[in-house]
Amino acid sequence: MSNTKVLPLLEPEGAEAVAPCCPPLTERPFTAEEAETAARMFKALGDPVRLRLFSAVASHEGGEACVCDISDVGVSQPTVSHHLKKLKEAGLLTSERRGTWVYYRVEPSVLAAMGKLLTIAPAAV
Amino acid sequence: MSNTKVLPLLEPEGAEAVAPCCPPLTERPFTAEEAETAARMFKALGDPVRLRLFSAVASHEGGEACVCDISDVGVSQPTVSHHLKKLKEAGLLTSERRGTWVYYRVEPSVLAAMGKLLTIAPAAV
Repeated sequence: MSNTKVLPLLEPEGAEAVAPCCPPLTERPFTAEEAETAARMFKALGDPVRLRLFSAVASHEGGEACVCDISDVGVSQPTVSHHLKKLKEAGLLTSERRGTWVYYRVEPSVLAAMGKLLTIAPAAV
Repeated sequence: MSNTKVLPLLEPEGAEAVAPCCPPLTERPFTAEEAETAARMFKALGDPVRLRLFSAVASHEGGEACVCDISDVGVSQPTVSHHLKKLKEAGLLTSERRGTWVYYRVEPSVLAAMGKLLTIAPAAV
């Protein structure tokens, strides 16, 4: 019963580390540090299965899903778990155990930060 | 003004293959085909050196750069060429030889398509 340790919805440590990292890619050349941080996020989405799992979580009702909701991508359960772990490590998902299941949720600030990277600066077009 | 029709005019062949592939990640689960296409683009940016090269091209004056302008990322010239080739294959850069040098240019429609993928659909937040 006491596993209801309320989700720190914004996971300050994990998310903060990756989210507001970099200017738009078109603004100025990235430094090595910025590139390291941003590449980690892009790499996490650079796998078809991970991308499908991510969009399954992101588009699921309420913006969260448990493994039981999203295993429909044609790979084994351990593989699903492996990919979800990678997405968590990249700061793209957060998770919370509730009873039997672990629920995954998209970290909107990271998604927004990645979107910002891909903004086309007016000067560059 | 009427800046609305700018993107489709650019490089129909190369871009068409990768650009308008997928809905926002938060809209619905991706199909296997959509995930394949989109993952290829993300993967191309999922390497720090490639990301630095890409931002160097994207932010260079006039939106294009030759290899001579952007080799300042601490790797050998062949490695630079290798990464630029990968970015081209992913549809993120186009290139054109002019005299001695090959000039690289960001494909704005692909960048825009990737940005769209990362849009947070109102329902998902």
